[in-house]
Amino acid sequence: MFPPSLLRLIEELSKLPSVGKKSAKRLAFHLLNQPKDTPLALARAIEEAMRQIDHCPTCFGLAEGGVCGLCSNPKRTLGQLCVVEEARNIFTIEASHVFFGLYHVLGGSISPLSGRYPEDLRISELEARVAQGQIKELIIATNPTLEGEATAHYLTDLFANSQVKVSRIARGMPSGGDLEFADPATLAQAFEDRSPFGRR
Amino acid sequence: MFPPSLLRLIEELSKLPSVGKKSAKRLAFHLLNQPKDTPLALARAIEEAMRQIDHCPTCFGLAEGGVCGLCSNPKRTLGQLCVVEEARNIFTIEASHVFFGLYHVLGGSISPLSGRYPEDLRISELEARVAQGQIKELIIATNPTLEGEATAHYLTDLFANSQVKVSRIARGMPSGGDLEFADPATLAQAFEDRSPFGRR
Repeated sequence: MFPPSLLRLIEELSKLPSVGKKSAKRLAFHLLNQPKDTPLALARAIEEAMRQIDHCPTCFGLAEGGVCGLCSNPKRTLGQLCVVEEARNIFTIEASHVFFGLYHVLGGSISPLSGRYPEDLRISELEARVAQGQIKELIIATNPTLEGEATAHYLTDLFANSQVKVSRIARGMPSGGDLEFADPATLAQAFEDRSPFGRR
Repeated sequence: MFPPSLLRLIEELSKLPSVGKKSAKRLAFHLLNQPKDTPLALARAIEEAMRQIDHCPTCFGLAEGGVCGLCSNPKRTLGQLCVVEEARNIFTIEASHVFFGLYHVLGGSISPLSGRYPEDLRISELEARVAQGQIKELIIATNPTLEGEATAHYLTDLFANSQVKVSRIARGMPSGGDLEFADPATLAQAFEDRSPFGRR
């Protein structure tokens, strides 16, 4: 009854995260109501990104063929390496302008329950980078979740006998947060890692 | 610093309705984490829809070249014509399985304040269809908004002296609604159009 290409468009759109059948329909009709250039530009952008974006062979972040813009930037501090779970984490950290070293993307976190073991992550690649001797500090910025913590502990143990200093990003109350809404684990960490006032 | 094709993808995704910069980033990384086939299928579906979908020359609903599946369906009641503002309205009405006649898409509603006059809508095309003599009833299903009502009044006046019966879909309390949340206009219409209980 309805144009097959419209039904297919709705179906493909509904595969996007948090897009149900109804939102997919709304999106499809929105695209059809646009001047043809706009939806075609989106289609081309998807195709281009799929064709061009690859992993940086050094940090395993995103790059368009070869070493990424961060790894090849001579202004970055070579001595500090920030270890993250996913490539998208790099964008978030870069947006906060607090870190000027290099990155290493593990490609996930250790979670034996989900069948993700250390050998599934890019840990041997991390060891190889550390073995080159330029890196003085590993800043572990995995998520403050059970899996992220397990990964942080694993890496801390792994590099315990090496020359490199291993640190973990702080956990505590988020800026602008309210004590009333803090969960017990966050509050416990905030008390444990308390610092003399005025030190910072 | 970041791959240009990724930035372009984020920009194009952020043009979608109710997708901000942050959601666009989330969508882009989601697409990049998929097996390449899935995002490419979406891109192809957009391109296909843009290339193939056109207006049905009879009802001005959506079709893939030529007369649409509804207009060419011999099982539809030829005597009833439902007049809607937009092509997407047909999908909503069809999904409710209450109407088995044909449709006519006006392409909007009358709104002099926004510069949309009767001559901007497909009203002459509607007159031509009515003039063919097969249509016994026009069911006006424009939105229950100021503009939709104005359009309904305009069409009622236009066909006042013709053989065709003109009706308007009912306004009242939505099924499952709560009196507490009904707006005064809806409530007023619900009282005005009240019917003897048991009649339906």
